[in-house]
Amino acid sequence: MFESAELGHKLSKEEYRNEEPGLREKLLDVQAELKEKASFSVVIVIAGMDGSGKGDVTNLLSEWFDPRHVTTHSLGYPNDEQAQRPDLYRAWQVLPPKGKMGVFVGSWYTRPLHDRTCKQMTKTEFDQSLREIKNFETLLANEDVLVLKFWLHLSKKAQKKRFTELEANPRTAWRVTKQDWENFGMYDRFRRVAERGLRLTSTAEAPWHVVEAADKEYRALAVGKVLYESISKKLATPHERPVTHVPPRLEPLDKIRILDRLDLTKSLEKEAYEEALEERQGRLNQLFRHPSIQKRSLVAVFEGQDAAGKGGAIRRISGALDARQYRIIPIAAPSSDERARPYLWRFWRVMPGHGQIAVFDRSWYGRVLVERVEGFCSEDQWMRGYSEINDFEEQLDRNGTIVVKFWLQISEEEQLRRFQERETTTFKRYKLGPEDWRNREKWDAYRDAVNEMVERTSTEYAPWTMVEANDKKYSRVKILSTLCDRVEAEL
Amino acid sequence: MFESAELGHKLSKEEYRNEEPGLREKLLDVQAELKEKASFSVVIVIAGMDGSGKGDVTNLLSEWFDPRHVTTHSLGYPNDEQAQRPDLYRAWQVLPPKGKMGVFVGSWYTRPLHDRTCKQMTKTEFDQSLREIKNFETLLANEDVLVLKFWLHLSKKAQKKRFTELEANPRTAWRVTKQDWENFGMYDRFRRVAERGLRLTSTAEAPWHVVEAADKEYRALAVGKVLYESISKKLATPHERPVTHVPPRLEPLDKIRILDRLDLTKSLEKEAYEEALEERQGRLNQLFRHPSIQKRSLVAVFEGQDAAGKGGAIRRISGALDARQYRIIPIAAPSSDERARPYLWRFWRVMPGHGQIAVFDRSWYGRVLVERVEGFCSEDQWMRGYSEINDFEEQLDRNGTIVVKFWLQISEEEQLRRFQERETTTFKRYKLGPEDWRNREKWDAYRDAVNEMVERTSTEYAPWTMVEANDKKYSRVKILSTLCDRVEAEL
Repeated sequence: MFESAELGHKLSKEEYRNEEPGLREKLLDVQAELKEKASFSVVIVIAGMDGSGKGDVTNLLSEWFDPRHVTTHSLGYPNDEQAQRPDLYRAWQVLPPKGKMGVFVGSWYTRPLHDRTCKQMTKTEFDQSLREIKNFETLLANEDVLVLKFWLHLSKKAQKKRFTELEANPRTAWRVTKQDWENFGMYDRFRRVAERGLRLTSTAEAPWHVVEAADKEYRALAVGKVLYESISKKLATPHERPVTHVPPRLEPLDKIRILDRLDLTKSLEKEAYEEALEERQGRLNQLFRHPSIQKRSLVAVFEGQDAAGKGGAIRRISGALDARQYRIIPIAAPSSDERARPYLWRFWRVMPGHGQIAVFDRSWYGRVLVERVEGFCSEDQWMRGYSEINDFEEQLDRNGTIVVKFWLQISEEEQLRRFQERETTTFKRYKLGPEDWRNREKWDAYRDAVNEMVERTSTEYAPWTMVEANDKKYSRVKILSTLCDRVEAEL
Repeated sequence: MFESAELGHKLSKEEYRNEEPGLREKLLDVQAELKEKASFSVVIVIAGMDGSGKGDVTNLLSEWFDPRHVTTHSLGYPNDEQAQRPDLYRAWQVLPPKGKMGVFVGSWYTRPLHDRTCKQMTKTEFDQSLREIKNFETLLANEDVLVLKFWLHLSKKAQKKRFTELEANPRTAWRVTKQDWENFGMYDRFRRVAERGLRLTSTAEAPWHVVEAADKEYRALAVGKVLYESISKKLATPHERPVTHVPPRLEPLDKIRILDRLDLTKSLEKEAYEEALEERQGRLNQLFRHPSIQKRSLVAVFEGQDAAGKGGAIRRISGALDARQYRIIPIAAPSSDERARPYLWRFWRVMPGHGQIAVFDRSWYGRVLVERVEGFCSEDQWMRGYSEINDFEEQLDRNGTIVVKFWLQISEEEQLRRFQERETTTFKRYKLGPEDWRNREKWDAYRDAVNEMVERTSTEYAPWTMVEANDKKYSRVKILSTLCDRVEAEL
């Protein structure tokens, strides 16, 4: 991978002076156009060898671009708060919106490459990290993010030379640390690890650009030119995006969906309900005082038809918990900030830390429910969504987050009854809008979408629980019991 | 993943009788159209639980379709000859050409699912297998193959019922073996393994179709209908294929490619050459008598400009070897049989077994050389080619195959001299055609292609060796030395 970056590429200072002003002007132009059109965002990864000038190049980019629309991030090692979440959490936090650019000097590559080199990560873990990174970048590329990855390369000889020169100059000697020389001792191993890292994450849509970095002028102009060419090409063809052609899947021949098998007549008497509720809430409260929970998190997802009783069920959970432990996150139509990023962004932002609970009233499953049914995204987008969501939840699971998912199902008749009740009860009227009536007309389309969702995203580590919800008492107790059982099994 | 296939789906015999004749007619129609248009091929995977009727469904497909254009394959465990090659070798051998269908009952999934369930495979190996399979199927989907995967599912209860029923009937009792009951004991583990297997290989372009299989009529009609819908959809949109948009990569700013750094004046005197040649040939011969070679294979790739001396160099290798050990494989324009399959097919077919050597005079690198330069494939196809090729060679490496790759480089002047010599020497004239002169005009385009090829496909396990070939004596000795050193290091 590094052959063409060990050739001794260089540019004279004169060539650089001739080229640089024109390039800067063009970069500012494309940046202005990017800002104005706001049709995609740009993620720039600056990675490479120690001493290859990653910092210099990043500083240069801040100089070249209008700093109001480009942000630099250095993801080194996670802090305490970050370490409680999956590795990619930090990257998701700071994804630029459409129209803007993010420069990552120190990126999602830093930790796996370093840890694998120092054998703090097994080969299996390393490969798993690379797979997550590849899927992450493919998702970005599929969702209007231009991903540009630069590897600033130094040969072993060039790295040694660079350190020696820096040390010889009293003004720069401080830049070479003992650690640098220690790392130099591992040059060959790092090079091998990096080669595998680059190879397994170099895709047609987000290839690595390997740049020889020994010459300051050369590396700067090389990075700048790729930036200009790539951004201007994508500006010229804004609607180009990867397209996958999806073969048809069939509805069940006997028309029976998972939902049809639910016995919606299940119910509980008031007395039995109150007793069960109290018992489960007590259990839940106890479970969340267990010392082990301090190293775990919980994500609870509630999906279901309008008026299926999600809110009421959620309140029965929160009622059992200490207010400092949980957060209820209602998901409505995305804000403009959220629309400017890939759809998973808003969820990544609120992933809970250790000892914390996040309860989602609707969730990322909107992608394969409302967005599918309403045509807000294309078939290949929501079809890809299933594996994107599975990947997301697998990362949570690997991180020790317990993921529980509930689908609350009511009958059409029961929904009608509840809608009418909402219309006539003053304090419930706010809960009902014209959209609810419109959604009702798409009952069958939702039935198909729910069926395929459960089929493709119910996994060992994050199974769906289907809840018969015509009787609120029954459904609340079932939800609380499931939650207690699951948490108990995990602790 | 299996929720919707544990609902007790079934069809009455009457419904089946009503539907089946019409479906058969439609299947024959699409098959005829597929044959006539020959614009893509169809790969059908029938996998699933023991006792789920995989054999029955496969037999039915043979009945329904015109048997001349559909072939059934059962890839169980590899035989001795197959076990010497990478796992996917067997699948590649029997890929159907455009216009035809291949049914795989027992597929590339059989072995990993079984071995992982029996813990004969580690989690790392299992995940690596799944990654290879996913990449393989994505390659197929990208190269005009419609991939349809069916998982015939039985719940634990249904499987038990099925075995008990078969045993109770004297005519079918023989079908239930002791092994079946042993496997039944591992049902839960197998289900978990299968769930991960399906999840990590379910993509938007090649999703799994999970079919409940307890009812004979239901499973047959479900599979038949998906086949009909999928094939007819693809027939209706023959030019639809996944498209990846490729960001631009830049040529080196100082115009220096890897090739430019080669010192083409390197040469050897006749006497030194003859001595060195003899010594290296002897060494090579010895190496290939080494007992360890009996568990390894060697793949040697020769690429280079026209008249760069590939043939002569290859003869210096073969001259040192036992004729039973090696095979020289010259690669010209693909035959119609080869054009009807993904481009890697012709190479997979001739992968050497243990103790064997395959020498390629031109190779799969045609994808990123001649096909790129001549526009025989699109940018996103050859750009994907780099990782497809890296994956291919990684599979060889994992299998113990030593991969050596040589690029032979001559100067434009030297090529002209050799062309003219070929024109005037009667016994060499056959070596020169109008195409050679045309290729010469694309010298610069090839220089770029070679540069990017080396950059993106020179890997730790299969590095490129650049050979200065203006002097044939020098280049032959360098090639032989490299080969000896590499094989020696590997043994």
